[in-house]
Amino acid sequence: MADSSLERIDDLQRGGCVLIQRPDLFCFGIDAVLLASWAEAGRGGRVLDLCSGNGVIPILMDAHLPEHLRQEGSVRFTGVEINSISVDMARRSAGMNGQSGRISFLEGDIRMVCRTRHTDIEEDRYERQDGLRTGTDPGLIPGSFDCVTMNPPYMTGGGGLTGDNSAKTIARHEITCTIDDAAAAASRALKAGGHLYMVHRPHRLGDIFRTLEGNGLGVKRIRMVHPFADKEANMVLIDAAKGGKSYVHVQKPLIVYRSPGEYTEEVREMYG
Amino acid sequence: MADSSLERIDDLQRGGCVLIQRPDLFCFGIDAVLLASWAEAGRGGRVLDLCSGNGVIPILMDAHLPEHLRQEGSVRFTGVEINSISVDMARRSAGMNGQSGRISFLEGDIRMVCRTRHTDIEEDRYERQDGLRTGTDPGLIPGSFDCVTMNPPYMTGGGGLTGDNSAKTIARHEITCTIDDAAAAASRALKAGGHLYMVHRPHRLGDIFRTLEGNGLGVKRIRMVHPFADKEANMVLIDAAKGGKSYVHVQKPLIVYRSPGEYTEEVREMYG
Repeated sequence: MADSSLERIDDLQRGGCVLIQRPDLFCFGIDAVLLASWAEAGRGGRVLDLCSGNGVIPILMDAHLPEHLRQEGSVRFTGVEINSISVDMARRSAGMNGQSGRISFLEGDIRMVCRTRHTDIEEDRYERQDGLRTGTDPGLIPGSFDCVTMNPPYMTGGGGLTGDNSAKTIARHEITCTIDDAAAAASRALKAGGHLYMVHRPHRLGDIFRTLEGNGLGVKRIRMVHPFADKEANMVLIDAAKGGKSYVHVQKPLIVYRSPGEYTEEVREMYG
Repeated sequence: MADSSLERIDDLQRGGCVLIQRPDLFCFGIDAVLLASWAEAGRGGRVLDLCSGNGVIPILMDAHLPEHLRQEGSVRFTGVEINSISVDMARRSAGMNGQSGRISFLEGDIRMVCRTRHTDIEEDRYERQDGLRTGTDPGLIPGSFDCVTMNPPYMTGGGGLTGDNSAKTIARHEITCTIDDAAAAASRALKAGGHLYMVHRPHRLGDIFRTLEGNGLGVKRIRMVHPFADKEANMVLIDAAKGGKSYVHVQKPLIVYRSPGEYTEEVREMYG
């Protein structure tokens, strides 16, 4: 399954943490860095990462935890990813970083997440194999997560577009992970008052509001991400809460570059 | 009806145009200036201004028309306002500015706009009284407008909130003009492909997307307005088109002040 000749190991610039990636599958970009930083507002308790890919979101969030939180183990991450090669890389990355006690990765379809106590993701089988779970980890019980993160594929459809179900296509297109699927999974996973943090494309804002509200998630904060101060936004960060109506605070704009090739100070700090 | 002792006449700083206002009713603010500028992108043809108040939006838009458009009369504005005192002031302002040939104001409830050829607004009666309409002005025919503008009351409800139906309360609260009423009126008024331009509060974005899309209006552009570059947005400008799905371009942020009390160059230009 793992073909290490296709892999590379990247330094995440955070506490010596690394990430195993395969350029032929999908490598993380700035959207993952922004989302991990955005979601840190809600750190604490149990965090579920949907469409986890190579695991970059929980690995970055864990790497950025204050030492006392890491020591006491009060924050636990669970990543769900449909591609078995990605799950394998994510587990090995967490292992290399000494994060396996706090981060678990499950192979499975997010459409099955938190449907029942025992899901098709077969966490029990996984639990026996890896020995990562303890008696205190409740698994994918509905309504048991404080926080859900999601960096989903941005493109609509995909089937008709490409006729191609390769891992790279799945990571970029909404084939196995539509916004609707992800919002429904987040809604099942979250406790009342728990937060969903996601990054997406601004042109989908209509779909995003519709599906979040349709799944009982009220939008509380959004932040537009502009490549330059005088350009259109090309990403949007979203914070929604389970069980509330939308009441949106639009935060100050996040500008990525101060000049071509030079990040703003805020983004430089996010990269560590 | 008109009590001129309560009125003041403000210079709009655009081609010598003035606006009659009554501070005890409602005076226009920066949101009107931003909306007039935002909507100028869609100038041309017939423009309907909902919840028109003292008429500031069509008066500003007309004042900013290039001379050749004003000469040929290819742009015509119709304002609808429920408060008779405001309608009277708006008509007199347009008259003082020499705009009466291009701008008409109708007294009426936006919930009746464009329901049928002849509405409860009784445009025919109005036509006879004022003589402003010509055989070429088709009146409030459904689907006859190229553009709708709207600077609606921002506060939800109002009835239970204040127990007060004064003109000032109606202008600030959604009593006679909810977002839903206004979106429905805009949808009835617009031609297929015509645009609605509105300004509102960012915290209502969820309601705004829901009601626009529910009325067949797809959101095409939005622009966040921030008082300062490092502050939350306190207004949002919206451009939606009739008959399309939402595909949102989030334009560069609009920053109002460069320092306390000092407008940015972009806003200074909008003020003329």
